[in-house]
Amino acid sequence: MEFDHAGIATDDRDALIDQYEAILNASVAHEERFGELRVAFLDLGNGYFELLEPTADAEGPIPNFLDGHGGGVHHLALRTDDIGDALDRARAAGVDLVDEEPRPGAWGHEVAFLHPESTGGVLIEFVEH
Amino acid sequence: MEFDHAGIATDDRDALIDQYEAILNASVAHEERFGELRVAFLDLGNGYFELLEPTADAEGPIPNFLDGHGGGVHHLALRTDDIGDALDRARAAGVDLVDEEPRPGAWGHEVAFLHPESTGGVLIEFVEH
Repeated sequence: MEFDHAGIATDDRDALIDQYEAILNASVAHEERFGELRVAFLDLGNGYFELLEPTADAEGPIPNFLDGHGGGVHHLALRTDDIGDALDRARAAGVDLVDEEPRPGAWGHEVAFLHPESTGGVLIEFVEH
Repeated sequence: MEFDHAGIATDDRDALIDQYEAILNASVAHEERFGELRVAFLDLGNGYFELLEPTADAEGPIPNFLDGHGGGVHHLALRTDDIGDALDRARAAGVDLVDEEPRPGAWGHEVAFLHPESTGGVLIEFVEH
C-alpha cells in the first residue's frame, strides 16, 4: 500500500499553503470545502500534504485535535486499489476500525480510518481514488 | 520535494513492524542501530515508515516524545537532491532551522530538521540519499 498523504490540522490553511509552497516548492493540486473543513492538497509529486482547517463553528475531530494539540500531523493516509480488501486485511490483523465500511472523503475519494490504538498511536486512513 | 518517510516513535519497534507488515502488506527495507535508536524502514513503494525505538537508557527527542505523547508520528521527511539548496530556500522563507547544516542520519543519508514553529506544528526533515 503506497503513501497517499499526510493530513495536517491547521487553524490557518491559506497561510500554511503559502509557507509550504515557499519551503517545499510545491503547489496546490486541489482545494475544496468538505463539510466543516476547508481542505487543500499540496502536491509533492508522489503524494500530498492535506491541510485541514475547521470553519469557525465546526465541531468534530479536527477542532478537537487543534484544541488539544495545536496544529500538526493528524493522520497518515495510504492508497489502495481495493479499500474493501484493505479493511479485510486490517480486520484479520486484529485492528479496531473507526469505519467498518468505506465512506466518502475529500476529493471524491473513498476513505476509512483505523483506530490508532491498533497502529502504534498513528491514525491511519485508507484511501481509494 | 517528494515525500520520503514518516518517522514514527514507538516503544516496541518489532511488534509494530509485525503489525504494519500485516496491515499494509509492507516489508522491512532496512534496519539498523543508529546512536541510541533502533530504527527500521518499512517500504511503501513510494516512501517509507521509519520506526524509531529508543534503547533502554536513551535520552533525547524520541524518548522525550514518547514520555510526553506516547507512540505516534514524530516527523515527516521530504527527499531532495540538494539539501543545501533546500535549506537555503527554507531560510529565505523565514524558517527557523534546527540544523543549520546537514548532518548524518539513519541509512547513511544526510538530514536536517526545521523548527515546527515555522511549519504549522509539523516537524519536517529534509533528507538527501
